[in-house]
Amino acid sequence: MSNTIGTLFRLTTFGESHGVAYGGIIDGCPSGIKLDLDAIQNELDRRRPGQSKLVTARNEKDEVQFLSGIFEGITTGTPIGFLVPNTNFKSSDYTHLKDTYRPSHADYVYQQKYGIRDYNGGGRSSARETVNWVVAGAVAKQFISNINIKAYVSSVGNIELNKPYTSLDLTTIEANDVRCPDAATAQQMEELIREIKKQGDTVGGTITCIIQNVPVGLGEPVFNKLQADLGKAMLSINAVKGFEYGSGFQAATLKGSQHNDLFNEDGTTQTNFSGGIQGGISNGMDIYFKVAFKPVATLLQEQEVLTSDGKLEMQQGKGRHDACVVPRAVPIVEALAALVLADNYLLKNINDKK
Amino acid sequence: MSNTIGTLFRLTTFGESHGVAYGGIIDGCPSGIKLDLDAIQNELDRRRPGQSKLVTARNEKDEVQFLSGIFEGITTGTPIGFLVPNTNFKSSDYTHLKDTYRPSHADYVYQQKYGIRDYNGGGRSSARETVNWVVAGAVAKQFISNINIKAYVSSVGNIELNKPYTSLDLTTIEANDVRCPDAATAQQMEELIREIKKQGDTVGGTITCIIQNVPVGLGEPVFNKLQADLGKAMLSINAVKGFEYGSGFQAATLKGSQHNDLFNEDGTTQTNFSGGIQGGISNGMDIYFKVAFKPVATLLQEQEVLTSDGKLEMQQGKGRHDACVVPRAVPIVEALAALVLADNYLLKNINDKK
Amino acid sequence: MSNTIGTLFRLTTFGESHGVAYGGIIDGCPSGIKLDLDAIQNELDRRRPGQSKLVTARNEKDEVQFLSGIFEGITTGTPIGFLVPNTNFKSSDYTHLKDTYRPSHADYVYQQKYGIRDYNGGGRSSARETVNWVVAGAVAKQFISNINIKAYVSSVGNIELNKPYTSLDLTTIEANDVRCPDAATAQQMEELIREIKKQGDTVGGTITCIIQNVPVGLGEPVFNKLQADLGKAMLSINAVKGFEYGSGFQAATLKGSQHNDLFNEDGTTQTNFSGGIQGGISNGMDIYFKVAFKPVATLLQEQEVLTSDGKLEMQQGKGRHDACVVPRAVPIVEALAALVLADNYLLKNINDKK
Amino acid sequence: MSNTIGTLFRLTTFGESHGVAYGGIIDGCPSGIKLDLDAIQNELDRRRPGQSKLVTARNEKDEVQFLSGIFEGITTGTPIGFLVPNTNFKSSDYTHLKDTYRPSHADYVYQQKYGIRDYNGGGRSSARETVNWVVAGAVAKQFISNINIKAYVSSVGNIELNKPYTSLDLTTIEANDVRCPDAATAQQMEELIREIKKQGDTVGGTITCIIQNVPVGLGEPVFNKLQADLGKAMLSINAVKGFEYGSGFQAATLKGSQHNDLFNEDGTTQTNFSGGIQGGISNGMDIYFKVAFKPVATLLQEQEVLTSDGKLEMQQGKGRHDACVVPRAVPIVEALAALVLADNYLLKNINDKK
Repeated sequence: MSNTIGTLFRLTTFGESHGVAYGGIIDGCPSGIKLDLDAIQNELDRRRPGQSKLVTARNEKDEVQFLSGIFEGITTGTPIGFLVPNTNFKSSDYTHLKDTYRPSHADYVYQQKYGIRDYNGGGRSSARETVNWVVAGAVAKQFISNINIKAYVSSVGNIELNKPYTSLDLTTIEANDVRCPDAATAQQMEELIREIKKQGDTVGGTITCIIQNVPVGLGEPVFNKLQADLGKAMLSINAVKGFEYGSGFQAATLKGSQHNDLFNEDGTTQTNFSGGIQGGISNGMDIYFKVAFKPVATLLQEQEVLTSDGKLEMQQGKGRHDACVVPRAVPIVEALAALVLADNYLLKNINDKK
Repeated sequence: MSNTIGTLFRLTTFGESHGVAYGGIIDGCPSGIKLDLDAIQNELDRRRPGQSKLVTARNEKDEVQFLSGIFEGITTGTPIGFLVPNTNFKSSDYTHLKDTYRPSHADYVYQQKYGIRDYNGGGRSSARETVNWVVAGAVAKQFISNINIKAYVSSVGNIELNKPYTSLDLTTIEANDVRCPDAATAQQMEELIREIKKQGDTVGGTITCIIQNVPVGLGEPVFNKLQADLGKAMLSINAVKGFEYGSGFQAATLKGSQHNDLFNEDGTTQTNFSGGIQGGISNGMDIYFKVAFKPVATLLQEQEVLTSDGKLEMQQGKGRHDACVVPRAVPIVEALAALVLADNYLLKNINDKK
Repeated sequence: MSNTIGTLFRLTTFGESHGVAYGGIIDGCPSGIKLDLDAIQNELDRRRPGQSKLVTARNEKDEVQFLSGIFEGITTGTPIGFLVPNTNFKSSDYTHLKDTYRPSHADYVYQQKYGIRDYNGGGRSSARETVNWVVAGAVAKQFISNINIKAYVSSVGNIELNKPYTSLDLTTIEANDVRCPDAATAQQMEELIREIKKQGDTVGGTITCIIQNVPVGLGEPVFNKLQADLGKAMLSINAVKGFEYGSGFQAATLKGSQHNDLFNEDGTTQTNFSGGIQGGISNGMDIYFKVAFKPVATLLQEQEVLTSDGKLEMQQGKGRHDACVVPRAVPIVEALAALVLADNYLLKNINDKK
Repeated sequence: MSNTIGTLFRLTTFGESHGVAYGGIIDGCPSGIKLDLDAIQNELDRRRPGQSKLVTARNEKDEVQFLSGIFEGITTGTPIGFLVPNTNFKSSDYTHLKDTYRPSHADYVYQQKYGIRDYNGGGRSSARETVNWVVAGAVAKQFISNINIKAYVSSVGNIELNKPYTSLDLTTIEANDVRCPDAATAQQMEELIREIKKQGDTVGGTITCIIQNVPVGLGEPVFNKLQADLGKAMLSINAVKGFEYGSGFQAATLKGSQHNDLFNEDGTTQTNFSGGIQGGISNGMDIYFKVAFKPVATLLQEQEVLTSDGKLEMQQGKGRHDACVVPRAVPIVEALAALVLADNYLLKNINDKK
């Protein structure tokens, strides 16, 4: 059950970094949706390693193959099976990991939990799993095409974009390799990443996501609050350490008289500290949230590892890894947001028609 | 489905603030657990309004009645039904809300989503729902009695407890009304809350939760990562705006060489930026996380509200509300953490025995 | 999880025969449904022991108390909690069961599975659980009020009503104590039950259920075929040993050229061997199915039981039990059918609105 | 959600008869199980069309490809993705179906429910979906390898095998094409099928399934009774019209004093009318059940069909279809039984370890 997300618009996935393929089944996508397959492939390309000089040189050619659920380009309401073959792995990159556990990786806990693990790369814990999410999220985006979901990099290390999203031109997100809609900040971020990369080190960052044109009424009042579903989805991304929406952690420092969002006569609000969600339910204002990513644990430096027989030894980090994952994580954040919104959109329909 | 939490250790709840009773069904609690009913009542008392001068004077006498699932004091493996009657509500407190929507409350979105709402108090959106969670969490704590779960108030407004939890004496949490295990900071927090209360205003805060003695292997690798389950649970609390675990948002500013937790020979780690979870799975180190609460939206000041016919008007806030909810939210955070841990404990068992 | 039925229109229940109360939570019932509470109580009265000379003299006064989810008589979309107190049990009736396992009861397997059981009556395995189903089914009936669900007794022992339902006047079902819509057959059945009762014995029977005015499109194509959901629900009734729909077991003896239901021009069919379901999905024709009940295992005769220390001994059956459960099971069959239909009605809505 | 079966041992599937491939994801299979891939392929071969002169000549080469979840031949606890490519379809066989609805097929209800359907063959309603079930069932069989699951054909049309299973040699099931473990009856069945085939007609039948060496304690007391799970699974097979277990429909004619299964001192029972399940929970005795299949609706005769513009017209049945599906359905019944048992085996583990 750990490999399914969603209640009505459901994605179930499989795949390991060094297996034959990743893939998944989208169950619950309504019939009658004309799918733009190029748009789906385009999302995969945004996630792809090797897309720019900033990211890993590993050149995974990620091509999605749809196997069912689409007839003459239109969804039929039956489950959409898809595959993304693994074409470019070198397991020789990883044989040094057979008997060692890397710090801050899943190696150790997998071995303890399952008694066996695919030591070629991360196995099931590899971030390559996110190809599945991006494919399904791209389908979800087309299902809820009236809703706009845009994410961008809002910080890398200590370089932070300190402007409210409402003052940014979100159409410029893709204008630079780091996906930051502010040219000057983007340049600083890129420089920092290049510097970190030279050191064989990695660095964390944050992504901000904006969801616009959301109908009133998405989300459930108690355990499936919209922010809870979004938070769970984001905390499913490997490197994520924190999630906040609307006023977020800053809200803890404010007074109610400062924080309350007074109404306009049409039900919109004058401010939006609530982040578009009240009582767990969308109120029609923009939803916005921020996600914190830790630095990637795989370093291209020498580092102490634990051996399976309980010894510590130095090991040189190898492989092809990003010095900073946040630019490539932007489409992943959007994809998961789209899955959550699509699911809640279907759940809302139930109450709308009796 | 929005009223159920958990996969194997499941809680399903009902109740509105001005109805007959709250209550729930705990399904999946294993048989053979001797329940200490006083300990359960004690958790309810920790959550209770009117417990100290800091919190609302409303004196809800919250007494849980167990209706099934327990035979001669021991769980039988059948569902545990329970009730917490509402004994002390005055619906006259709320008649002014019939045709108005308060800012930053759920009134407006409920009316839009359901076309009907119980305007006496918050209806289903009332924080009184948390009595159910505290009862079930108290049962869960007894099921996973080897695991220690302790939460405390780590900030109120701008008064912050800036010490790592490892330097605090967690046995002193209950020594003051604000539930902060540092006497000097606690006193400052109490003063701030009293001042805010005098203003008829409210203030936010944060709660930190520590989970100790967790077995290795709780949590699932992809969509049910332990941090994702914990985050979702915490984001289900009405006023929560943010969740971070381990290094949290600070991780975004760090380098991998700073952040990686090097191993000791026994599989423990020298540092614990990971917050006790790696790859979604507990590694046996302490789990710790922080939750941000916004200030309560109900003010005892005059405030602009929206009427159901689309007009704005001033309304005087009434009722009995907390100026700061975080002290009373401490047992709620613990209860939800216990439910998540108990659920993942059962899920782990599946793999342990084949 | 064994105590929940339904995906969107969900019932979760608790209760043991000799505990304080039975009860449940209906989650997912849409808002805006005006509930006729007398109609709900009426369904409970149809299920009630002591309602006629044919059934057990045990006079359970089953009164449902609704605790939430209804405001001014109308559902609010929030979970509907309810209780049915146990008012008339005598645990002294059952003390002889503490250390013995009765044949064809759940005593033995419960003890093996849970290591503990409430030996007063059947505990969780008591058929009294069906009060919960009848309450929730009565709510479901009002939600899908356009659909007519009628069940009747079609056989008791070897007395069989050998007429197609289309030739019967279903408005006469309640005209006799045995709930058989054919006066002559009903009288034979009643005589048989009286005779069996005199012997201290019990006898099985069958119930036929007819569901009319079902919209086209309820049910899902693969694992949630409408007949599979109905069959599962019926096989959840304690004494049920078999389920068939449409042509049922007789279909196995027929040729395709005999069995196919040829169309009329309006999409209806000339015959209805399909029983209103094709490919798992309702086709708008009447749904009809038959359920087989074994004779109740509790006899008022002397019978050999197994003791907890592995000895066989004779024991006199005691307590107040039905000689034949099928008359009282009629409203139970209808209630479960209503729950399944309501759930599939909501599931259908998802596809209807995109 | 209609494409998933199981709670802990879960299978989610996709595929249409004339698409690229069928496939599925097995989630929840524990780690550490050494898989015999030949045994899995062997089950597929038992289901395969063209395997004997009795069945359709369509020669689908069903080869399963495993894509994940297995490392060096052993399950890793991660989801097992698999594919069964469609290699031998001719869509030209089906173009006559584009604008017509065949009687007793899913064509009409699919069009009504989804507004679109893949008219090449049955689309999602094709019985080819059962390749997925057979693959997953074969994995489940290896997980619960101590439990023996054997099904056989117990009737074809009016030719019935009227012997209790305990008097049969179940090792001879595969000795004839019709899979009936009684040579004389098998011959009669084969003759009947050949005769029916000559007529371009089809015929129904029944399958009996025996499950031996089941541990005590599988199944849940209320809504997930073991018989309810088995019944639901069997009623998911396209042509199934009825399910009975243990004494089945015959139980309805018996008296309690005849039907009760008296104990032996070791907890086994002298008779087994209960069919190995009491109170929804396995009691360690053999589980046995019978499933009724209607005759296949696709005839190789001329037959009246409905056109999409509401006219009736004669149409000649085409394609390659079985005159009787029950011989090929034997491994399907076993596969679904294995999935249900594996799922309940995992559920039982939860209670076993606290």
